[in-house]
Amino acid sequence: MASNKEEVKVFGLVESPFVTRVEIALKLKGVEYIYEKEKFGNLSDTLKKYNPVYKKVPVFIHNDKPIAESLVILEYIDETWKQNPILPSDPYQRALVRFWSNLIDDKCLSGVRKACFTLDEKEREKSIEETKEALQFLENELKDKFFGGEEIGFVDIAAVLIAFWIPIIQEAFGLKLFTSEEFPKLYNWSQEFNNHPIVKEKLPPRETLLAFYKARYESHFGSK
Amino acid sequence: MASNKEEVKVFGLVESPFVTRVEIALKLKGVEYIYEKEKFGNLSDTLKKYNPVYKKVPVFIHNDKPIAESLVILEYIDETWKQNPILPSDPYQRALVRFWSNLIDDKCLSGVRKACFTLDEKEREKSIEETKEALQFLENELKDKFFGGEEIGFVDIAAVLIAFWIPIIQEAFGLKLFTSEEFPKLYNWSQEFNNHPIVKEKLPPRETLLAFYKARYESHFGSK
Repeated sequence: MASNKEEVKVFGLVESPFVTRVEIALKLKGVEYIYEKEKFGNLSDTLKKYNPVYKKVPVFIHNDKPIAESLVILEYIDETWKQNPILPSDPYQRALVRFWSNLIDDKCLSGVRKACFTLDEKEREKSIEETKEALQFLENELKDKFFGGEEIGFVDIAAVLIAFWIPIIQEAFGLKLFTSEEFPKLYNWSQEFNNHPIVKEKLPPRETLLAFYKARYESHFGSK
Repeated sequence: MASNKEEVKVFGLVESPFVTRVEIALKLKGVEYIYEKEKFGNLSDTLKKYNPVYKKVPVFIHNDKPIAESLVILEYIDETWKQNPILPSDPYQRALVRFWSNLIDDKCLSGVRKACFTLDEKEREKSIEETKEALQFLENELKDKFFGGEEIGFVDIAAVLIAFWIPIIQEAFGLKLFTSEEFPKLYNWSQEFNNHPIVKEKLPPRETLLAFYKARYESHFGSK
């Protein structure tokens, strides 16, 4: 439990939606933390020591104990700081939250990655379809202002990838994955979410991210 | 919470380690359930209705409410039936349990699948290496009789894939992934785990599973 002398650190990259998930959750909880800035493509030995399995950001450290994997970190944050819960208390609702959050990583994330980086046109079409199928399930699931109801919850935070990253990635890579015409409810949700005062404060500058993905496009496919 | 009139159902396949996870957890908790038998390659419309996203077993149904994804189901079972907890109570220990359980699915499962089914020799070697690297992390993590300590816990149940399935799969496909020489602690653990009275009761017959994977080998590569 939270003590007075606790130290919270986040090893992060400005470009990572997984780091932003952790930062939004901490801000919602009102937990102060130290941000240790990592560099894309040149992660520190400290980061790799803390996350030897995946060698990725985010790494979250609470009183010298490291945790990796953003969804695992979100559960830890919610269990450790009880204010403004991001998971519901009912076990069935919690199960659904875990299911939809995993879907975002299993289907949307891997779909977008493949759609962006494959050199095979057919493979790209297939990945776009798979991503859209996952977005359609989320579109159907969205019944209130947020996935969490009237307030932002765990699924909303996990879905920052969709709300903020996918529109920028599709612009940089010239893809059409997530449009307001095809997913009107999800699009409205993304606007509400991105403009939520706590979320807004933790999102990286749009132009920084767009420049980052344009550079990734060029290093993968050559300049346009 | 558990009521008197509750109904618990598991839609399963005898060949699925993910279904066995759920069955072991229910048996540990002493929860009675109805088993709805599905057929590999010919899943019922009922199953697909309950799990439209993945169209896979297991589907777990408690009082008409369906849950998919075995690790999500395990968390639900532990939150609903409090006896014989499979997750520790400390948030940091819970985070580690979730981290290692996810690793089993992210790395071991996908590594084994690729090692079995790729037609590319280099790809196969790489997948074998990746699987072994994940097994080595688990070997290093194993400090007691079980991952859960003196009793079976969440990671042990998740790792039924390693204890029982991988030895059979590697025999059927002629691979060397998990050997007692290379992973002595994990091998001893697997023997303890497979012989635990509750686990033993829920494992499918070894010969049935071996015949199933030999048939999968032959349908993929032709007869030996």
